[in-house]
Amino acid sequence: MRTQVAVIGAGPAGLLLSHLLRRGGVDSVVVETRSQEYVASRIRAGILEQSSVDLLTAAGLGDRLRAEGHEHRGIYLQMPGERHHLDFVDLIGRTVWVYGQTEVQKDLIAAGTAEVHYEVTGTTLHDVETDRPYVTFVDSGGAARRIDADVIAGCDGSFGPSRHAVPSETFERTYPYSWLGILADVAPSTDELIYAWHPNGFALHSMRSDTVSRLYLQVPNGTDPASWPDDRIWQELATRLGHGEHGWKLTGGPVTDKSVLPMRSYVQTPMRHGRLFLAGDAAHIVPPTGAKGLNLAIADVTLLSQALVAWLRAGRPALAESYSDDALRRVWRCTHFSWWMTTMLHTGSDPFDAQLQLSQLRWVTTSNAGATGLAENYAGLPIGF
Amino acid sequence: MRTQVAVIGAGPAGLLLSHLLRRGGVDSVVVETRSQEYVASRIRAGILEQSSVDLLTAAGLGDRLRAEGHEHRGIYLQMPGERHHLDFVDLIGRTVWVYGQTEVQKDLIAAGTAEVHYEVTGTTLHDVETDRPYVTFVDSGGAARRIDADVIAGCDGSFGPSRHAVPSETFERTYPYSWLGILADVAPSTDELIYAWHPNGFALHSMRSDTVSRLYLQVPNGTDPASWPDDRIWQELATRLGHGEHGWKLTGGPVTDKSVLPMRSYVQTPMRHGRLFLAGDAAHIVPPTGAKGLNLAIADVTLLSQALVAWLRAGRPALAESYSDDALRRVWRCTHFSWWMTTMLHTGSDPFDAQLQLSQLRWVTTSNAGATGLAENYAGLPIGF
Repeated sequence: MRTQVAVIGAGPAGLLLSHLLRRGGVDSVVVETRSQEYVASRIRAGILEQSSVDLLTAAGLGDRLRAEGHEHRGIYLQMPGERHHLDFVDLIGRTVWVYGQTEVQKDLIAAGTAEVHYEVTGTTLHDVETDRPYVTFVDSGGAARRIDADVIAGCDGSFGPSRHAVPSETFERTYPYSWLGILADVAPSTDELIYAWHPNGFALHSMRSDTVSRLYLQVPNGTDPASWPDDRIWQELATRLGHGEHGWKLTGGPVTDKSVLPMRSYVQTPMRHGRLFLAGDAAHIVPPTGAKGLNLAIADVTLLSQALVAWLRAGRPALAESYSDDALRRVWRCTHFSWWMTTMLHTGSDPFDAQLQLSQLRWVTTSNAGATGLAENYAGLPIGF
Repeated sequence: MRTQVAVIGAGPAGLLLSHLLRRGGVDSVVVETRSQEYVASRIRAGILEQSSVDLLTAAGLGDRLRAEGHEHRGIYLQMPGERHHLDFVDLIGRTVWVYGQTEVQKDLIAAGTAEVHYEVTGTTLHDVETDRPYVTFVDSGGAARRIDADVIAGCDGSFGPSRHAVPSETFERTYPYSWLGILADVAPSTDELIYAWHPNGFALHSMRSDTVSRLYLQVPNGTDPASWPDDRIWQELATRLGHGEHGWKLTGGPVTDKSVLPMRSYVQTPMRHGRLFLAGDAAHIVPPTGAKGLNLAIADVTLLSQALVAWLRAGRPALAESYSDDALRRVWRCTHFSWWMTTMLHTGSDPFDAQLQLSQLRWVTTSNAGATGLAENYAGLPIGF
């Protein structure tokens, strides 16, 4: 078959790109190795920046988000004995929204704008350095297929084939800790997210809805979730989040999901090679502290859709030529911010580091400049800043 | 002999403390192992924060500073190909002053307010846990002497005996680089300091006066100054500082001093034990990036003089009781800031770190919040903040 843009991957980056291209009058076809049910049920990020919400709304995908999502004015930053609210609205006039990646994914599927081939195998990119790139794969029925396209968009994450087709420089950092994350069927014990520094390790109280809480504990790499029975998790969350301090209480409930997430920073440059463009996790990974991963993917595909529409419909290649540099400015800003939030909040063995963290947290929670710096990064800079 | 405060060390911390105590009606005697000429000629820091200038002025020590010092509106931050001015006046309404520590020292000696015993040996602190502490030493004439006091103030730096008399917790960080510093008899090639990030390593263009420049190069630890002939130094400074870029030129000249300075962060807590109070380098060391060392010593002795006057003259011990905690708030803020400036500007071997540094520098030079955060720390928070 023939299309203008062959999109590899039907996660939020690939589906949103296809959706935005369609609205811009550019055809695309998406291939995905997983089933539609699988990609729609993966538990991932839960925080949308203001500019992500604006983009989804402008793209006609904001109705359920605005009806069911929760707008937050800011976050809490906590040290033992003190909890501070950073009010992003007061600081920078912007907010963030709690709305799970799974919900964004469902909205994209419901929009029905993307032609997706699910459960394909053997996806292979060809001739990306020429004007006639193409993709081959075996469809779910076992038939060999081929997509001829003007452009290939690699939205297939860090495990997909696209990123290997780009000769690139890589930048990487691993961290000596992971997150033990749970989903629980209980109303959140807080109105907005609590990021807590504690000598035992970082803890985060997040949420998915009025009835579903999402909580995390810093644990050593290689931790077996089985070594953390539910009681132990709730007890440690209570300790780190300050149950009983200043009258605040953490309410436990049935744990419906439990997993250990390793943390990594990864950037691959450039984000384009010939007719192949990378977007989202295919080009970069951030640790979850700071909630940048999904937002960065949305920013990437926003830039990429604008670039491809200008090029393929109007014959203007300038945005496509500058796509990699334009996207990487935000990628590095978010990579730095995610690294900064991560290293400020996770404890290690060096007492000097702990004092630096506490001094940094005290400054961020008492200096207007410090709080504003965190807020403008957390709530997100405008796309294309 | 008997006095109210026995001060160990006649550097700027000890002499300023004695001066402030005298103005508050409290007597003190200072002992110093070096000669007056030696302490007055040590080449040290050169930047005074606004609050240090205000304090020295209020203490009657500001005349020559305001006549001969140079007030700077801000600093330059540089990356290859771009130099940005951070204007502290615009950002926070405060300035910094170029005025060498040697000049402050000369002004303190000229004030003549401190009774100082120079070139003493065998300084020993006694009974600091009692109400009757005393100091013994051998004076420059070879006579054994004893000072009985109400309080001992340890202003004798990291090599003096005072800090060892405080049972304490220590926090320390060494860095994998040093500064090669020169003094040169040549007019500065810049109106304000240039902090330059460069792949070869950090460089700093500072100055002492209209005719004396002070410049630094990041070098590996253990570097022998003899391996850096003057020509090589000027050539490397030209490269890192961007000679020829945008029409800017670095003018070389006769090098009058050359040395290698290791870098260290060090904090000892608490800063008080019984009747012994520590101030300045006796309790904490910062790396020179950010110019905090002398300013922190001035802030310490300001708090300490207020505390001792209130206690020894008015019988109110509250400020003395809280001195260590009060001083340490600023110590940790400056320790964090110095660490942050140092690790943002000095290059290492990890390409991921280099990208984090550049992203951080780009943010600081383009975001108002980022620039304000640097400015308020560099120009200094009010004493007692």
